[in-house]
Amino acid sequence: MFDVPKGYRFAAVEAGFKYRNRCDLSLVVSDCPAHAAGVFTTNAFQAAPVVVSQKTLAGSPVARAILVNAGQANACTGEEGEKRCLATRTMVGTPLGIDPTEILVASTGVIGDQLPMDRFERGAKALVDNVGHSSALDMAKAIMTTDTFPKLVTATVSLEGGTVRLLGMCKGAGMICPNMATMLGFIVCDARVDPLWWQQTLRTAVDESFNAVTVDGDTSTNDCVLALANGQSHVEAVSRSDKRLLAAGLIDLCRELAFRIVQDAEGGTKVLRIRVSGAKSKPQAETVARVVGHSPLVKTALYGQDPNWGRIVAAVGRSGATFDPNQVSVAIGDTTIFSKGRPVEGDWDSILAPVLKRDEIVVSISLGTGRGSYELLASDLTEEYIRINADYRT
Amino acid sequence: MFDVPKGYRFAAVEAGFKYRNRCDLSLVVSDCPAHAAGVFTTNAFQAAPVVVSQKTLAGSPVARAILVNAGQANACTGEEGEKRCLATRTMVGTPLGIDPTEILVASTGVIGDQLPMDRFERGAKALVDNVGHSSALDMAKAIMTTDTFPKLVTATVSLEGGTVRLLGMCKGAGMICPNMATMLGFIVCDARVDPLWWQQTLRTAVDESFNAVTVDGDTSTNDCVLALANGQSHVEAVSRSDKRLLAAGLIDLCRELAFRIVQDAEGGTKVLRIRVSGAKSKPQAETVARVVGHSPLVKTALYGQDPNWGRIVAAVGRSGATFDPNQVSVAIGDTTIFSKGRPVEGDWDSILAPVLKRDEIVVSISLGTGRGSYELLASDLTEEYIRINADYRT
Repeated sequence: MFDVPKGYRFAAVEAGFKYRNRCDLSLVVSDCPAHAAGVFTTNAFQAAPVVVSQKTLAGSPVARAILVNAGQANACTGEEGEKRCLATRTMVGTPLGIDPTEILVASTGVIGDQLPMDRFERGAKALVDNVGHSSALDMAKAIMTTDTFPKLVTATVSLEGGTVRLLGMCKGAGMICPNMATMLGFIVCDARVDPLWWQQTLRTAVDESFNAVTVDGDTSTNDCVLALANGQSHVEAVSRSDKRLLAAGLIDLCRELAFRIVQDAEGGTKVLRIRVSGAKSKPQAETVARVVGHSPLVKTALYGQDPNWGRIVAAVGRSGATFDPNQVSVAIGDTTIFSKGRPVEGDWDSILAPVLKRDEIVVSISLGTGRGSYELLASDLTEEYIRINADYRT
Repeated sequence: MFDVPKGYRFAAVEAGFKYRNRCDLSLVVSDCPAHAAGVFTTNAFQAAPVVVSQKTLAGSPVARAILVNAGQANACTGEEGEKRCLATRTMVGTPLGIDPTEILVASTGVIGDQLPMDRFERGAKALVDNVGHSSALDMAKAIMTTDTFPKLVTATVSLEGGTVRLLGMCKGAGMICPNMATMLGFIVCDARVDPLWWQQTLRTAVDESFNAVTVDGDTSTNDCVLALANGQSHVEAVSRSDKRLLAAGLIDLCRELAFRIVQDAEGGTKVLRIRVSGAKSKPQAETVARVVGHSPLVKTALYGQDPNWGRIVAAVGRSGATFDPNQVSVAIGDTTIFSKGRPVEGDWDSILAPVLKRDEIVVSISLGTGRGSYELLASDLTEEYIRINADYRT
């Protein structure tokens, strides 16, 4: 059984936005007002629910519920889109006795179409009736688009005053695919927290997890991570060590969710863990990791189980980071195949065959210049990715 | 017939570096010393021939010949690689009576292996005997790696004093693939030019052509473009209008070569012409064009003949350029499908079907903010690209 944070109830129903025979409208409600935090897409085109949730949190970082629909992104829908988004909050808030301004919203699905309000209205009625009758897993399934499995993680953290619980769910197989826009994450926690600290901590956790993964480098109009902390454990994260513990728990939870997103990457067969060390700075290490993790040639090589240091090194070389090429080394797993600017002699195809067959491959790149390091999770690139994305609409 | 610039002879032989039953070692010799210019890869890992040619031009911008081998890149080969590269110049220069420091060199092929000097020696002997017995097209074939067709373009330019001729060849299907490292371009011209102006003009031409195409965003250790102007037409490009004309001819020639590289992109079926206008500045327009042209989602959509404005718009949105989303418009061919931040209603799948079937598709993006514009040529992304690059070594 999942150890669900106290004071939350879930709902999930079939509204029929795009999918048949599965839930696509869902809700998590806190029994009491919760401190709410959010991190939103930096894309210049922001979907209506992103605009609305951002405004809501800017007004007051308190929320009672998160309302999510899958199938329609409500992005590039103009003022009308925002109006419809606000209307959906009222549809759900009024019968539940929750102020609409205390409902955060998120959408994922096709861009450009207006929400079908008749379906939303019917769905909202069913949703309100369903509150408490669905599980967190039901909601994790209801937020999926092209995901092949639901992504749900729970954790407990022992603080001085007792135990608190965290639960997170996300979707994003179509990561990072604007048309099924795209990565959504929702976290609920029963600790009592300081709202400002909660927002900062969520921001850090997202940077260390969801922002450190890449499938295809594309980011969407709808990406957001929302987090509620309702205090229903009656345990407060107040001391410095408590805060550190809860922050670490939140980061771990987000990292586990992010890993599952890469695991479920469209057409992906492997998770590539790109570790860069010895860079002049952390941002330089990140630059190198991203160039390598985005390189179609590196991604296809590792898909093909080819220990192709040449492609890795060439990507490092064009990253723009500052380093001496003669100090660069590359390892796959624990085996160094490129050392101080030169390939290491060896029959790597044979030696690394078992390592490259695994579904998680560690590529370690040492620049030998400084102490900056960064780790990025990336997917490989496969024919299946092309098929999914070339055939998506037709 | 090709109108070949005066005073150049070509040679091409089978040295057996990697390929069988085709030439892989080639040379172009100018009858007299020519003003020489070069533009080289910015990759931190530079192949030995790139280092050698760069040093040579820094010493004196005069050359008699360009020596090229395909199959071995002589990259990541350390000091020994540079020594061997220098030795190959002597092998060819001595019997031809050309100072080795007047020979520019380029290599393309597998990274990390040392040049096989026995094969090179046998090949060099044959090459020297072959000078004048091969055509420019033979050389254009001999520099190919995974290219499916040779890329050769000629042009004539009428200057005040008479006609001058340009001939350019390039390879780069495996563009931009570090392991078959990678894009090489060679241009010969029989105009008499000022050496400094020739170098600046080549740099501009490369920026406007080869640097304005992308296949997979990867650049290599060996990329270079070399250009000779030997004055054998006895026509000098001296007046401002002559210089402008010759520069324009060089840009056109390079653009045509660059187009053929994208046309021959690994696994590519289409050339995407990404036109960005209305940006705050040219660099901002370029940023947008590159983000769109590199987006795997955009590339797969156009491969799938899907007029997917959502993916284009989402890529524009994450580019980091400054603009008002409500002023952005997108057209495919002549048809606007997204206007001022909103999709235009229409059955675009039917209307655009014939346009999307073509092997060249124009995507026009207007940001409505300023006067900066940029045009990028990109390839689409296909299952075939994955197959070629996942199976390349095994």
